Amino acid sequence: MSTIADVATQMKLESPIMAAAPLELRNDALARIREALIAHADEIFAANALDLAAAEESGVAAAVTKRLRFDEHKLADVCAGITELIGLPDPVGKTLLARELDEGLTLYRVSCPIGVIGVIFEARPDALVQISTLCLKSGNCAILKGGSETLHTNKALFQVIHAAAVEAGLPEGCLHQVEARSDIAALLSCDTAIDLLIPRGSNAFVRYIMDNTRIPVMGHADGICHVYVDRDADPHKAVDIVVDAKTQYVAVCNAAETLLVDRAVAREMVPQLVHALREKGVEVRGDKDVCALTNCTPATEADWDTEYLALTISVKLVDGVDEAIDHINRHGSHHTDAIVTENAETAARFMQLVDSAGVYQNCSTRFADGFRYGFGAEVGISTSKLHARGPVGLDGLVTYKYKLFGSGNVVADYASGAKSFHFRDLD
Amino acid sequence: MSTIADVATQMKLESPIMAAAPLELRNDALARIREALIAHADEIFAANALDLAAAEESGVAAAVTKRLRFDEHKLADVCAGITELIGLPDPVGKTLLARELDEGLTLYRVSCPIGVIGVIFEARPDALVQISTLCLKSGNCAILKGGSETLHTNKALFQVIHAAAVEAGLPEGCLHQVEARSDIAALLSCDTAIDLLIPRGSNAFVRYIMDNTRIPVMGHADGICHVYVDRDADPHKAVDIVVDAKTQYVAVCNAAETLLVDRAVAREMVPQLVHALREKGVEVRGDKDVCALTNCTPATEADWDTEYLALTISVKLVDGVDEAIDHINRHGSHHTDAIVTENAETAARFMQLVDSAGVYQNCSTRFADGFRYGFGAEVGISTSKLHARGPVGLDGLVTYKYKLFGSGNVVADYASGAKSFHFRDLD
Repeated sequence: MSTIADVATQMKLESPIMAAAPLELRNDALARIREALIAHADEIFAANALDLAAAEESGVAAAVTKRLRFDEHKLADVCAGITELIGLPDPVGKTLLARELDEGLTLYRVSCPIGVIGVIFEARPDALVQISTLCLKSGNCAILKGGSETLHTNKALFQVIHAAAVEAGLPEGCLHQVEARSDIAALLSCDTAIDLLIPRGSNAFVRYIMDNTRIPVMGHADGICHVYVDRDADPHKAVDIVVDAKTQYVAVCNAAETLLVDRAVAREMVPQLVHALREKGVEVRGDKDVCALTNCTPATEADWDTEYLALTISVKLVDGVDEAIDHINRHGSHHTDAIVTENAETAARFMQLVDSAGVYQNCSTRFADGFRYGFGAEVGISTSKLHARGPVGLDGLVTYKYKLFGSGNVVADYASGAKSFHFRDLD
Repeated sequence: MSTIADVATQMKLESPIMAAAPLELRNDALARIREALIAHADEIFAANALDLAAAEESGVAAAVTKRLRFDEHKLADVCAGITELIGLPDPVGKTLLARELDEGLTLYRVSCPIGVIGVIFEARPDALVQISTLCLKSGNCAILKGGSETLHTNKALFQVIHAAAVEAGLPEGCLHQVEARSDIAALLSCDTAIDLLIPRGSNAFVRYIMDNTRIPVMGHADGICHVYVDRDADPHKAVDIVVDAKTQYVAVCNAAETLLVDRAVAREMVPQLVHALREKGVEVRGDKDVCALTNCTPATEADWDTEYLALTISVKLVDGVDEAIDHINRHGSHHTDAIVTENAETAARFMQLVDSAGVYQNCSTRFADGFRYGFGAEVGISTSKLHARGPVGLDGLVTYKYKLFGSGNVVADYASGAKSFHFRDLD
């Protein structure tokens, strides 16, 4: 039996073939995958029933069971997603630069797939479909490790997807599934074969991955997002945005954890905001000024650095936009931060100086998402500053290579001065 | 006295101010730096004389001394480089995407500086000037650690550059110099403050950096570059390119280490190529087929994975372009590889399937360089596939952020179906 390292090494050698697959072939594979998922729906649902039964037996909460479920509705969603993905422009083979360096010496920078991507994701069957199809559309090979709570569903989905991709003509090694949690350690050591790891899941899990591999990691550990309500905020917008950012879905990285309120409007705004949050069942932890304005739990220093992922929010007064920016740059996780203000100049200052992947004016932090940005889907959200930042769609799954076409050119001629570069960009 | 960690943390907090510096200010700083270098030339030359004297005393080779020297000629070169850099377009603030997500909700992707960059580089005074000015032009703060053999020169250059930058109005923390080799370990642990490390130097040194930090590292450890001479090669071009790639400057990453010759033309080409290489004093290590064609040292398996950085080359026969591609993808370092052929189809296959940052037809691998690509200068060459690949100039020193402008938009409205996205790209 081949080890994970063997599989990854073989995949690395096949990845240039995968990268060379023309768009028509990649789109045809996606269309076949969609048809195969529909044709094999009953097997997939049966596998999912096993996972759901196991979850029920071990007493998993209803909210989690909902995420594990893969039914007609979810199937229709992922098929619609594949149709949309087929329609998206090809991220591969784009000429990013074309420059004549000298007569008979022309340089091109051309986008190309990254190569071999390892994705470790939570127990959500639709995620497996989204991630595998995003990788195939972008010409990448992928090793997938899904959450063990959906083991049977993952296995059924993967078999259908892999068979359809190979039938379309993509290389055998375009996709591989890893099932055991113990295989993760093996994946982390494949640094010569795997070009990029995308871990999704809890903060502790993502940190563990980042700390235990030499492979570049794209993703985020923390999501400590802020909403700052400025002196020039529209009070209605402020209340709506704060409530949405905190409560629309609490368990996600783009939910707000800290509310900053401009001291100039605190007396008017804090009671309104706190009231609206409490209506939704949110526990408020305030600094001493906030506690003086409304009866709430006193916040400790640790609160400013805490991602609650729950119906809890920390609230602090600040002396205007500059203190808000300073607080966010010190305590935030460089994910997504919003200002509520009608003052364009104040907003511009906030959006320039806050050092985060997403900076928003007058809208909820919950918009930080590949689908909502119009990327079709996302493989994750990056808080790293290198390569891709924010929600990562197809564009984040490609790199580029330089192609240089010469006519016998040698550097010695340019070093001696016999020839010189003229650098003329081509259309 | 402040520690490296204090300095880096303070720089991180100042980096948004640096990132907001308008182009005019950054270019004015560069112009002042150029003038200050000229005004303080005597001090700098005096400092350099101390370094040269120390080098001579410790018996450093003449070739190395040449690299350490900073004289009128080098000064003129770096000043010409700064003038060119001032003329280059601004990499910051470019709108990379503008999309109306819905009425009153507009998304922009805008290029911005990475933030705080740590550069550890070899003992070459001109490198200090190039790196610091590239970082400033791209709106980044930088911590610089140069080779200790040019300690006095570095100190003199840095003082002049930093003073001129601050005088122009850039923040005090835009640049910092670290002098002791022991400070490198401290730098490596500043992972919350430093966004990117660029190490330049020996393979072992770069690997040490990569293995001992959680900060993303951009650069390359190995440079095992190949030239493949195809059956359809022009023999004159083949000889010229192989000789240039191997001998024009042996101690650099983009010099060729392995020559692959198509078996179909080996009887004719190998003697010519080996003769030309020997004329330049190159030791040839061949596989057994090559040894049968010409008298040479037999190559061992280790030779295919060795970066000689010396007048030595390994030579192997391959059965056409596909075996050449396979050899390069297995043994290369994904840096730069060239094919010599007049056959456009064969070249296209090679350039598509070789998985390297640079793939060349009919020119020397020695062209892999930021100046020769028309980037003005480079901070290094990346063999990583993420973020930047190949020679890294201004474009590789920026990232982007998403700016989302709303009018009170909340996700709940889109989740409930009350509103929907329309995704309209703007001009």
